[in-house]
Amino acid sequence: MNLTTDTIASHNADRVARHRQLLAPWTDSVEQTETIIEKLVAFQIAIPSWALGTGGTRFGRFPGGGEPRNLEEKISDVGLLHALNRASGAISLHIPWDIPQDPKAIRQLADSYGLAFDAVNSNTFQDQPDQQESYKFGSLQHVDRAVRQQAIDHNIDVIRHGVDLGSKSLTVWLSDGSSFPGQLNFRKAFERTLGGLQDIYAALPDDWKMFVEYKAFEPNFYSTTVGDWGSSYLYASKLGPKAYTLVDLGHHLPNANIEQIVAILLMEGKLGGFHFNDSKYGDDDLTAGSIKPYQLFLIFNELVGGMDARGMNHATDLGWMIDASHNVKDPLEDLLQSVEAIQLAYAQALLVDRDALEAARDANDVVQAQELLQDAFRTDVRPLAAEARRRAGGALHPLALYRNLNIRDQLIQERGAKSIATGL
Amino acid sequence: MNLTTDTIASHNADRVARHRQLLAPWTDSVEQTETIIEKLVAFQIAIPSWALGTGGTRFGRFPGGGEPRNLEEKISDVGLLHALNRASGAISLHIPWDIPQDPKAIRQLADSYGLAFDAVNSNTFQDQPDQQESYKFGSLQHVDRAVRQQAIDHNIDVIRHGVDLGSKSLTVWLSDGSSFPGQLNFRKAFERTLGGLQDIYAALPDDWKMFVEYKAFEPNFYSTTVGDWGSSYLYASKLGPKAYTLVDLGHHLPNANIEQIVAILLMEGKLGGFHFNDSKYGDDDLTAGSIKPYQLFLIFNELVGGMDARGMNHATDLGWMIDASHNVKDPLEDLLQSVEAIQLAYAQALLVDRDALEAARDANDVVQAQELLQDAFRTDVRPLAAEARRRAGGALHPLALYRNLNIRDQLIQERGAKSIATGL
Amino acid sequence: MNLTTDTIASHNADRVARHRQLLAPWTDSVEQTETIIEKLVAFQIAIPSWALGTGGTRFGRFPGGGEPRNLEEKISDVGLLHALNRASGAISLHIPWDIPQDPKAIRQLADSYGLAFDAVNSNTFQDQPDQQESYKFGSLQHVDRAVRQQAIDHNIDVIRHGVDLGSKSLTVWLSDGSSFPGQLNFRKAFERTLGGLQDIYAALPDDWKMFVEYKAFEPNFYSTTVGDWGSSYLYASKLGPKAYTLVDLGHHLPNANIEQIVAILLMEGKLGGFHFNDSKYGDDDLTAGSIKPYQLFLIFNELVGGMDARGMNHATDLGWMIDASHNVKDPLEDLLQSVEAIQLAYAQALLVDRDALEAARDANDVVQAQELLQDAFRTDVRPLAAEARRRAGGALHPLALYRNLNIRDQLIQERGAKSIATGL
Amino acid sequence: MNLTTDTIASHNADRVARHRQLLAPWTDSVEQTETIIEKLVAFQIAIPSWALGTGGTRFGRFPGGGEPRNLEEKISDVGLLHALNRASGAISLHIPWDIPQDPKAIRQLADSYGLAFDAVNSNTFQDQPDQQESYKFGSLQHVDRAVRQQAIDHNIDVIRHGVDLGSKSLTVWLSDGSSFPGQLNFRKAFERTLGGLQDIYAALPDDWKMFVEYKAFEPNFYSTTVGDWGSSYLYASKLGPKAYTLVDLGHHLPNANIEQIVAILLMEGKLGGFHFNDSKYGDDDLTAGSIKPYQLFLIFNELVGGMDARGMNHATDLGWMIDASHNVKDPLEDLLQSVEAIQLAYAQALLVDRDALEAARDANDVVQAQELLQDAFRTDVRPLAAEARRRAGGALHPLALYRNLNIRDQLIQERGAKSIATGL
Repeated sequence: MNLTTDTIASHNADRVARHRQLLAPWTDSVEQTETIIEKLVAFQIAIPSWALGTGGTRFGRFPGGGEPRNLEEKISDVGLLHALNRASGAISLHIPWDIPQDPKAIRQLADSYGLAFDAVNSNTFQDQPDQQESYKFGSLQHVDRAVRQQAIDHNIDVIRHGVDLGSKSLTVWLSDGSSFPGQLNFRKAFERTLGGLQDIYAALPDDWKMFVEYKAFEPNFYSTTVGDWGSSYLYASKLGPKAYTLVDLGHHLPNANIEQIVAILLMEGKLGGFHFNDSKYGDDDLTAGSIKPYQLFLIFNELVGGMDARGMNHATDLGWMIDASHNVKDPLEDLLQSVEAIQLAYAQALLVDRDALEAARDANDVVQAQELLQDAFRTDVRPLAAEARRRAGGALHPLALYRNLNIRDQLIQERGAKSIATGL
Repeated sequence: MNLTTDTIASHNADRVARHRQLLAPWTDSVEQTETIIEKLVAFQIAIPSWALGTGGTRFGRFPGGGEPRNLEEKISDVGLLHALNRASGAISLHIPWDIPQDPKAIRQLADSYGLAFDAVNSNTFQDQPDQQESYKFGSLQHVDRAVRQQAIDHNIDVIRHGVDLGSKSLTVWLSDGSSFPGQLNFRKAFERTLGGLQDIYAALPDDWKMFVEYKAFEPNFYSTTVGDWGSSYLYASKLGPKAYTLVDLGHHLPNANIEQIVAILLMEGKLGGFHFNDSKYGDDDLTAGSIKPYQLFLIFNELVGGMDARGMNHATDLGWMIDASHNVKDPLEDLLQSVEAIQLAYAQALLVDRDALEAARDANDVVQAQELLQDAFRTDVRPLAAEARRRAGGALHPLALYRNLNIRDQLIQERGAKSIATGL
Repeated sequence: MNLTTDTIASHNADRVARHRQLLAPWTDSVEQTETIIEKLVAFQIAIPSWALGTGGTRFGRFPGGGEPRNLEEKISDVGLLHALNRASGAISLHIPWDIPQDPKAIRQLADSYGLAFDAVNSNTFQDQPDQQESYKFGSLQHVDRAVRQQAIDHNIDVIRHGVDLGSKSLTVWLSDGSSFPGQLNFRKAFERTLGGLQDIYAALPDDWKMFVEYKAFEPNFYSTTVGDWGSSYLYASKLGPKAYTLVDLGHHLPNANIEQIVAILLMEGKLGGFHFNDSKYGDDDLTAGSIKPYQLFLIFNELVGGMDARGMNHATDLGWMIDASHNVKDPLEDLLQSVEAIQLAYAQALLVDRDALEAARDANDVVQAQELLQDAFRTDVRPLAAEARRRAGGALHPLALYRNLNIRDQLIQERGAKSIATGL
Repeated sequence: MNLTTDTIASHNADRVARHRQLLAPWTDSVEQTETIIEKLVAFQIAIPSWALGTGGTRFGRFPGGGEPRNLEEKISDVGLLHALNRASGAISLHIPWDIPQDPKAIRQLADSYGLAFDAVNSNTFQDQPDQQESYKFGSLQHVDRAVRQQAIDHNIDVIRHGVDLGSKSLTVWLSDGSSFPGQLNFRKAFERTLGGLQDIYAALPDDWKMFVEYKAFEPNFYSTTVGDWGSSYLYASKLGPKAYTLVDLGHHLPNANIEQIVAILLMEGKLGGFHFNDSKYGDDDLTAGSIKPYQLFLIFNELVGGMDARGMNHATDLGWMIDASHNVKDPLEDLLQSVEAIQLAYAQALLVDRDALEAARDANDVVQAQELLQDAFRTDVRPLAAEARRRAGGALHPLALYRNLNIRDQLIQERGAKSIATGL
């Protein structure tokens, strides 16, 4: 399924007059408009290969149809998204679901869509059919050295695949933990896990990063061995300068102040990247910005402030990835919604008057500080995101175009109504 | 797999001396010892047919081996548990996983183990292979009348199976709800769901009860249409006198005071039954009493107080069921642990000096009221549960006997290492 | 402290050109603009008398200065807010903090500011100096009939004061509950509380409403006797048609879906009114919309949809009140922020295309339903709220005018830096 | 109010026969009985000076009567507790509430009761009458250097008082944080706070420890500058070897796994001490063990295991303190309950068969690991705590003796019904 530039141009032509109208107040009167648009153009969010099919829960899975059947089709789907929004210019693979048989061909294919390969992800939370040892009781934390070694080897293998494709980072999410009090010696589990991570770290190329993802609970329901930012920070700082913490928005206890965690990790030079999604209860993996859009904005407010304070490049110095599950939506539509929500939050954060904000803080003017953030958040920045897309060659309204073109129907025709993508 | 009375007798013979020693202080000095033991003997907890195999999460499932391959083997497993602890004298079936082909033979089989059939459970949260309509967007709440009718028909079908087996109640758990703001018209969803429940209620035999189970979230992650006790109560009171609320311990928001909910529902005559399990984060479905044993005791404290106040029979006037998932344990061992934890909480609740408690409350003597509950909870009542088992023909230490007999190994030999039970 | 119409006119004159520019796209192209503005003009939010001073926590209170020293000054403060935003046209009094010595004069004073008297609030959660019985162990739930009678008499007294002032509703918030397991017989506490509420209900004039407010916890830390909407609904339905549930946004367990609760209560005809505030952790009593503005919008989305479905008048058929605490802000500034946040959420909810929303729901088009809500929420409706203020004679930017006029300084000069308002 | 050894002897005489009966099975058959009793005798829990009066909430305070009016009476109250249970042999002071006018006399007084001085606590969360700068917007995080310096000076002053009394540690709990998004630059707040802590640390005597306490929320309701163990760990590790994290059980987000935090901090050599209490919702400051006794046991299970692994002395190498609030109980009775609950949890943790536990873990025998912990927890260890008290010269049943002697009545007579202790 390929989108021609003509298709997009024609879609844009129908909408550009109205778009110009909406953009006019911005170009007329807002000083930073150009800067924001440029930053939006540069800002790319990686699409995880496992989010292209319908997700499920332990209670069931309701497939949608037309799901990608192999890595090539996954790349094609991300290519389609990127053609539409010009903001999804990378794909994040999951091994063993996405082992490239011919890495060179796969790179060329991705290249043809303008896609890079973002972080590669290992999987030691499931048993594969041909696997020697079982991860039932964990992987790197396991009491049995053979299981740990298998998990280490797998991660090193994932790095190798990543090198072949041009990835520059490895995301390690461990489901390790325990479901019952007593099951685990927390200290020994930590030490064994650290040992395993050190072995993997040793295999990391010099220009790579390693992301240590934390999660408060699930699938283990009493403890997790990398359970919070404090633990992830401990691992990352013991590992060395190439190791970082990865923040997934759904991996926290109720009411956690994630934006403050982001600020602290940035301050310590240990924030590595993000998994975007949204949630109301747990790791619900809902569309980014669908439940708590103000929180998403506040996180970007910290990211922009914190990265600027360290002279970091917004687009390239952190890993930006979506990690969501699409149980009741067309995955591609959902991803378009997620990307737009992230762009809007980022644009609003760029709008914040930071000098005025620091001045308000220095004067303990709480009311004014709140006003400054709310001013930015209440501003309708959708014309900016649309303009960024237009300039980069994307569609003014990607979702509308996707629907007008009946893309899902075409995918179903192509791939069948029962195709099932690998993933969760 | 069958346990002879000789096997149990021999196990008990080895332990009875030590048991008598532990029981001695009870029989010597505690007045209500006999009453408690008798009540424990009478108290039976139904085993759900779906809890006999290894559970899983959306991230994976690690089967254990020897899982029951059909309804007959499920009954056999429950029969085994009951032979061991004499407290699991009922099985709760789940349709369509457990459709009895020959109900009469199945009843005879259950009878041979001394098992009754507790509540039957419908399933409108998954699509079955041969199903006309999909439950992707709900069942009784669905906007499409055909889907609702299918769900209604299924429930009526479940009742029919239950009648064949001698069940006397139907548990309706709906996963209906929404995952995104906007998805659902809450009011219409409620009304449609009520309409469906009314149709099912109409098909209920006169001597049956209908349990309306509520759940705060999962698999829907924004709203659930029967989301809390207040909603369930509304449905149940609109339905009529045969409709009741069912409380599952894991189906609440963080920090909920479940024991108070139990007290209020009992007071209103609308508590129907229980799904026992335990949890730290969400619907973790852990072994009863494994995380918050004091909460379990406090719930039984309300049950005993509230049922006595209404002259209810502890053993028969509410439905007692386990609903757990065994991801990292042998399911049968886990169920033995759950049943014992429930028995201990019940025994401790029976120990509470209720007259003294009411006197302390009437005097606003908070310290003394707390002491009275803690006195009961801190008491080691394991000898009472063991004695109840012994008198009823069960084993003094069911778990030890189960292990000594290598029952799991036998089941694996019998059924294979790869047998997978139907269920979650 | 009085604001002349000239002051406001002069403020508006400086800003009207820019305002017209921002409003232009609305008046040019949006059909419902006029309707929304009219509804905003009609929509009034009551200011609680206890929110005019600096709040505090158990750890301390940091007064700001210029706080109102008596009822007359409280009315003056609300009059000032109303002069600025023309949306705070009512005051909600708290007895015994605000007992009017000369009700007629007080009514005239309020009238001179264009203020009505909204719900009156009783206080049985504190002991007053001259009080016979103590509420240490509750009020209406208390085991001692004398305490209960004192609480009943107090509430009837509050009604009497309300009648004198032209109020039409009584808000009963009980802090009753328990801090330790065992302390309370939940059922008896419920029954005693119901009995007390019935006595108060009997004293209610025919055209009055009684609001039964619920709260999950604090100041009691184990149970509360009116703890959730289900309990409040039970009380209200047992009491009769004049009794309703009042929803305070901060009174829920973590992650509660408040908008669904609102929808259900509206559907049942038992929603009475609102206490607006915001929170991250508990009953934090923060500025409305300051933490979860999308939730506030979703609540208004249910309110607008649900009230329209019952043909209710948005402005008058529910009680709209703020209930917040201003620990680190100027209370008047905070209240201006709260009122604006509420207006914006209301305006956005009015923007929702309800026909399209129902159509999306009927088609199970989750993506489109989400888009429709997000479209409304992402729209910058501040020009509409400003226009509503302008038309009603208020200021285009109330907070800016408040600051430009140095009103707090004037209040401090008038009332002193150490004046302390009664309240929490 | 002084308890003679005769009084206690007479109380014990009445109960010793029954006590011996209960103790018999222990001394007959349990190997480690003597060791546990000895450890219990050595284990002392400090009583905070601010917990001797009735606590309150922002909604009110209901004093009980007979509260200590000065430091001398506070010491007398702790002396009384210690005389009763011989496990409260230390007092933890709070400056400026407890500034000793004549330190030498105060030390002698404490000595006469057998009391040591545990950690001294600073207070920068309230403004004192004579204070130059206000802590309204924080203390060590404050943007104004003068406020920070005042807070630093105060802490150094507290150290000085502590030195005079023989304390060896300083507990710093900061309420610093923010209540609204935007209010605070998280990074700068962290850095300023760290700077202040460094200045205080520099003033710490060589043989002192500094405890950095964290708290998730309250009195700030959006962020706290020392908000979780990760933050506290960061501060403590940047400060140096004398700085440690202090864990208060009520200072976490919902569902936090505190026992794992304890294990990690111990492993890192950065756990300093404990504030015991219990809670259901937030920082409820309820009696230790009154809500989640199994959690308390699991924490002690980690403490015993983790301290033993490092060769630490249970009694002396960590700071053990109660931090509770007694809103509806006699504070002294509540403290007796707390101390006993802590002793029981400790004794049960000592009972755990650690070799068997490690063996079960090494075999991934989850069922057995759970059984081992539950076996310990289900054991009635009250006879051991009673015996430890008896041997140390305390009462077999301290609460019963306290009540029999009508001590509260005597205190009211002595100090008046309206005496109010300083504190929260």
